[in-house]
Amino acid sequence: MKPIDGPFIDELNRLIFHRPNFMKSRIKKRYEEDPDNAWNCCSWCEYLLIVILSTILLVGVLVLTLFWVMFYRDGFAWSESPKQQFNLHPILMIAGFITLSGFSILIYRLCRCVKHIYVKLIHMFFHAVAIPCIALGFMSVFASHEALQKVNFYSLHSWLGFVTMGMFVLQFVIGFFSFLVMLCCENKTYSCRSAMVPIHASLGLANFWLAIASSVTGLIEKERETVNETGVSSENKLVEHYITSAIGVTLIFIGIIVTFAVRRSNAPASAKVYVTERI
Amino acid sequence: MKPIDGPFIDELNRLIFHRPNFMKSRIKKRYEEDPDNAWNCCSWCEYLLIVILSTILLVGVLVLTLFWVMFYRDGFAWSESPKQQFNLHPILMIAGFITLSGFSILIYRLCRCVKHIYVKLIHMFFHAVAIPCIALGFMSVFASHEALQKVNFYSLHSWLGFVTMGMFVLQFVIGFFSFLVMLCCENKTYSCRSAMVPIHASLGLANFWLAIASSVTGLIEKERETVNETGVSSENKLVEHYITSAIGVTLIFIGIIVTFAVRRSNAPASAKVYVTERI
Repeated sequence: MKPIDGPFIDELNRLIFHRPNFMKSRIKKRYEEDPDNAWNCCSWCEYLLIVILSTILLVGVLVLTLFWVMFYRDGFAWSESPKQQFNLHPILMIAGFITLSGFSILIYRLCRCVKHIYVKLIHMFFHAVAIPCIALGFMSVFASHEALQKVNFYSLHSWLGFVTMGMFVLQFVIGFFSFLVMLCCENKTYSCRSAMVPIHASLGLANFWLAIASSVTGLIEKERETVNETGVSSENKLVEHYITSAIGVTLIFIGIIVTFAVRRSNAPASAKVYVTERI
Repeated sequence: MKPIDGPFIDELNRLIFHRPNFMKSRIKKRYEEDPDNAWNCCSWCEYLLIVILSTILLVGVLVLTLFWVMFYRDGFAWSESPKQQFNLHPILMIAGFITLSGFSILIYRLCRCVKHIYVKLIHMFFHAVAIPCIALGFMSVFASHEALQKVNFYSLHSWLGFVTMGMFVLQFVIGFFSFLVMLCCENKTYSCRSAMVPIHASLGLANFWLAIASSVTGLIEKERETVNETGVSSENKLVEHYITSAIGVTLIFIGIIVTFAVRRSNAPASAKVYVTERI
C-alpha cells in the first residue's frame, strides 16, 4: 500500500474537512496542546474574571455569615449554651456545602496547568474537608434542638438539607470509587468511567444548587423565628435583615457563576480530549 | 492525484484512529444518524423514565399547588379580595417558572424526532406562554401588597424573585435574537450562535434553579406568616404544612431530574453534531 505522504494528507483535508491542518493536528496533538485551539485574550479575560469573582464570592459569603453570627447572634458555644450551639450550624454548613464544595467544583473544571490526577485529588480533598464541617454542622443543630426541645425534621428546610446531605454522601462515595479506585485497572474501566463523568458532573451541580436552596430557606426560617425577639432594637433587626438578605443574594450569584463556569464549551468535533472534561 | 479508494480509507482509519468506521461515518452521516451510535435498550429505558417522571413531577407540582391554594388558602379573586388575590401569585409563578419552563427545557433537549427548527419554536413558545403567567403573578402580589399596605421588595424571597425575573427576560430576548432572528443569515452567524449555545444553556439551567430556590423561600415565608393565624385548627395547619413541604420537595426533585436530563453526553470525538446540542 502507498505510504501516507504529506501532500496527500493536505489534499484529503482540503477535500473533506475544508481545514488544511485538521488531520495533522488530530494525529500529532491533544486538543488543548494544539496551537489552533489556543485561547485568545478574550477567553483569558473571561477565565480570570470567573476565577477572581468566584473566589471573592465564595470567601465573601463565609465572612458575611461569620460576621452575622458573631455580631448579631451572640457567637459560638457547644452544649453549655444550646442557642449559641445552633450558630455553628449556618457557618459550618456554608463552609462545607458552599465554600469548600464551590472551590472543589471550580478547581476541577478550571485548573489548567496541573497533571489531571492531582486535580482529581485536590477535588476529592476539598470535598473530604467539607465532610467534617457538614457532620459537625448537622450535630450542632441536632444537639441544640434536643436541648431546646424542638422537633427535628419538621420544617421544609430540614428536609431539603436531608436530601442535600444524602446526595453529597452518594456523590462522594461513587466519585471516589469510580474515578480514583477504578484507576487501578485504567484501561478496562475506561468506558465505565467515561459514562460516569456527565452523570457525576450534572448531579454534582444539582447538589450544589440544592445546598444553595437549603441555605436560603434556612436563612428565612431563622429570620422569621427571631422577628419577634424582645430586647433587640428595630434598627438592629433591620440591619440583620439586610445582612441575611445579602448572604442569600450572594449565594444565588455563586450558583449562577459556578453553573456558568462549568458549562461545557462547544469544542469542535475534532477535539479528541476536552480541556476540562478529562476522565 | 489518486482517488480516495475504499480499502485505503479503511487502512487509514485502522492505522490512525483504531476505529475502522471512523472516517466513513464522518463523511457520510451525522452523529445521530449513524447506526454505530444508535441507542441501546438501556438508553431508551432511561430516556422514557426521565420523560415520564419529569412529566408527572412538573404537572404534579402544579396540581398540588392548586389543591393547596383552593382548599387551604380560600381560592382566587382579583382586586375585590386582596388576600385571595395574593393566591394567584404562587400558582402563576409555579406554572410559568417551573411547569412551562421545565417542559420547555426538556422538550428542547429530549425531542429527538422533530426537525430542529420546530424544536426551537416549541422551546420559545413554552417560554412565551410563561411570560403572561409570570407577569400576572407579579402583578397580583404587587396589587395585593398595595391593598394590604405591605412593603414591596423587602424580603429575601422578593429579591430572589426579582433576579429570577430579570434573568428570565434577558435569556428570552438574547435567545430569541441569537437563535431565531440570526437564522436570517445562517452561515454568517454560525460561529456566533455556536458560541452562544453553552452560555444560553448554562444560564437557563441556573435560572431554573433560581426559580426553584425562590419558590421554596416563598413557601416558607407564607407558612411562617400564617402560622399564628386564628380560626384554623392545629390539625389543619399540620396538613397544610405537609402539603407545602411536599410542594418544596417536589420542586427539588424536578431540579435534580432536569439537571440530570440536560447533561451533555460524552459523545465520542468523532461526533460531528451532538444529538441534543444542535445550534
